[in-house]
Amino acid sequence: MIDDATQRPGGRTARVRAAVLTATLQELAQRGYAGMSVESVAQRAGVHKTTVYRRWATKPNLLMDAIATLAETKISVPDTGDLAEDLRSFARTIATTITGHDGGAVVRGLFSGATESSEVRDFLHGFWAGRFAQVRPMVERAIGRGELPTDTDADEVIKHVGAPLYYRLLVTAEAVTSEAAELAADSAVAAARAGVFRRRRPSSGD
Amino acid sequence: MIDDATQRPGGRTARVRAAVLTATLQELAQRGYAGMSVESVAQRAGVHKTTVYRRWATKPNLLMDAIATLAETKISVPDTGDLAEDLRSFARTIATTITGHDGGAVVRGLFSGATESSEVRDFLHGFWAGRFAQVRPMVERAIGRGELPTDTDADEVIKHVGAPLYYRLLVTAEAVTSEAAELAADSAVAAARAGVFRRRRPSSGD
Repeated sequence: MIDDATQRPGGRTARVRAAVLTATLQELAQRGYAGMSVESVAQRAGVHKTTVYRRWATKPNLLMDAIATLAETKISVPDTGDLAEDLRSFARTIATTITGHDGGAVVRGLFSGATESSEVRDFLHGFWAGRFAQVRPMVERAIGRGELPTDTDADEVIKHVGAPLYYRLLVTAEAVTSEAAELAADSAVAAARAGVFRRRRPSSGD
Repeated sequence: MIDDATQRPGGRTARVRAAVLTATLQELAQRGYAGMSVESVAQRAGVHKTTVYRRWATKPNLLMDAIATLAETKISVPDTGDLAEDLRSFARTIATTITGHDGGAVVRGLFSGATESSEVRDFLHGFWAGRFAQVRPMVERAIGRGELPTDTDADEVIKHVGAPLYYRLLVTAEAVTSEAAELAADSAVAAARAGVFRRRRPSSGD
């Protein structure tokens, strides 16, 4: 699948890949997934379209590779000894990250292709599972300290920290402030402490 | 701004408006905001593009009018006498609504233009303010019953119910189930009861 003999790091292959993935992110930000095409990415990257077709073959592959490059970045996992402080710090990092690329346009574009196909959805589920696994220790340590019930679903805690921030970015078009980040973290902590995220939840009585 | 003398309800003007707004929603679902154009909407609606230009003038106007048609639908506001039950019912309605149109593609498309301009952002803020105002009585009644602190920010409670559902739809590409809806509602209720959404929040100590 590699169309160039030069495969050493920093060689032409690596440069082409970097240029194409950067162009993909820019196209996603400007046109969204639906408006992007293999041709428009190739043109923006300054690469012949047959090069892009040979290596990525389809538009979903470009999207998935662009998301995968994000997965290569490590998330810093705070460990202050207090869940609320850890999650507030984590939430502020999310707020900074999702507004950092063109004020959220890249994030908006990246996820605008999420309904493309079951292949892309499966890929996204794997991407998020990997991200959640990286930060799960914050919740596990809190369980170990006795701050939370032992059967707390750590991933649900993490999701409820991030959700209000993406909601402001993608739905209500509000600023994703550090104040909003701390509110999201505090909300998830309060719910987790109350046992809302326990794996076996008590029946609601309805 | 009306290009047709027949303005009675159900006349040509109303039919053209309905066709154009339906076409706008379909274009948003299939191409996203960035990929949609006044021409593509006119073509899909079977209307001459000058008709669309005369009445809506710009693509942002089409988007805002499409969102405004959603605002015409009334939200049913449960009143069971218990905040948790009310918010669970409300959350299930959100889940059904946002996945009901092409499995969320319309919702995804509608908000994909949210970063277009400050005009569109201001419009969205007004749209959401109107939606939140409709359902705020659920929280106000709970305050009246003594279920929540009197200085609870009702809109933040409402936002934290909806956010995890839009997050599953737009970010993690997970199914927006009634179980997820109830979890989101219970989380917001627990946080509200703990005082997280009070307007004057205690300092975090950091």
